[in-house]
Amino acid sequence: MNTGDHYQYPFQFTQEEVIRFAEVSGDNNPLHLDAEFAATTPFKKPIIHGILGASIFSNVIGTKFPGAGSVYVKQSLEFLRPMFVEVAYEARFEVLSVNVEKHTAEISTEIYDIQTKKLTTRGVAVVMNKEHF
Amino acid sequence: MNTGDHYQYPFQFTQEEVIRFAEVSGDNNPLHLDAEFAATTPFKKPIIHGILGASIFSNVIGTKFPGAGSVYVKQSLEFLRPMFVEVAYEARFEVLSVNVEKHTAEISTEIYDIQTKKLTTRGVAVVMNKEHF
Repeated sequence: MNTGDHYQYPFQFTQEEVIRFAEVSGDNNPLHLDAEFAATTPFKKPIIHGILGASIFSNVIGTKFPGAGSVYVKQSLEFLRPMFVEVAYEARFEVLSVNVEKHTAEISTEIYDIQTKKLTTRGVAVVMNKEHF
Repeated sequence: MNTGDHYQYPFQFTQEEVIRFAEVSGDNNPLHLDAEFAATTPFKKPIIHGILGASIFSNVIGTKFPGAGSVYVKQSLEFLRPMFVEVAYEARFEVLSVNVEKHTAEISTEIYDIQTKKLTTRGVAVVMNKEHF
């Protein structure tokens, strides 16, 4: 893979998946699980855990772009806007640079709300993959 | 909460939790799930998803330190060493700075292997919490 290569991946989460992530991570912050509590916040309804949203980056990097054999080295994350269940999002990836000696690449990682076209999450991943870089 | 406040949280993950995280995130990279594949890698055995390890930061920030009402603004992550199931880890947190106008704080987030004392994951979170900052 080379600088400029890119990939898009549409996805959404269900409330059931948010509950399962809360169980596995132990993060049962009521902001994600309790509609009455969330109604008292600026978000008005439960929001997806930021790290659950970011797990899509892990999914795509580990299984699709570049795929099997990928080892995560770094990930920066900015949670710019809340994400909600049953909303259609698209994760977008672009190779920013490749280090062929280290078999690593910097990949920009972004999540957009497909309907509003707004950016919800932004960051950069550093990935090692001996087959692809 | 003030600069210098800190918190420790011991934890470990089971293979069952790794499988459930793979299901929720869609990240079924064989490095995490397939002992035979993992044996062919430098890690020798399946490693925990980096983002699953980082979910402990979300857990503690959302439910314990500072706790309910926390909103994640940013998180940087460096995956320095592999993490394994059934190994005892400790997540360590320290408030680096507080912005009282914005109700935000920078919190260092680290994971140590309790037995070897080695740092496995390092990063900095930015958190908004109107009650605590």
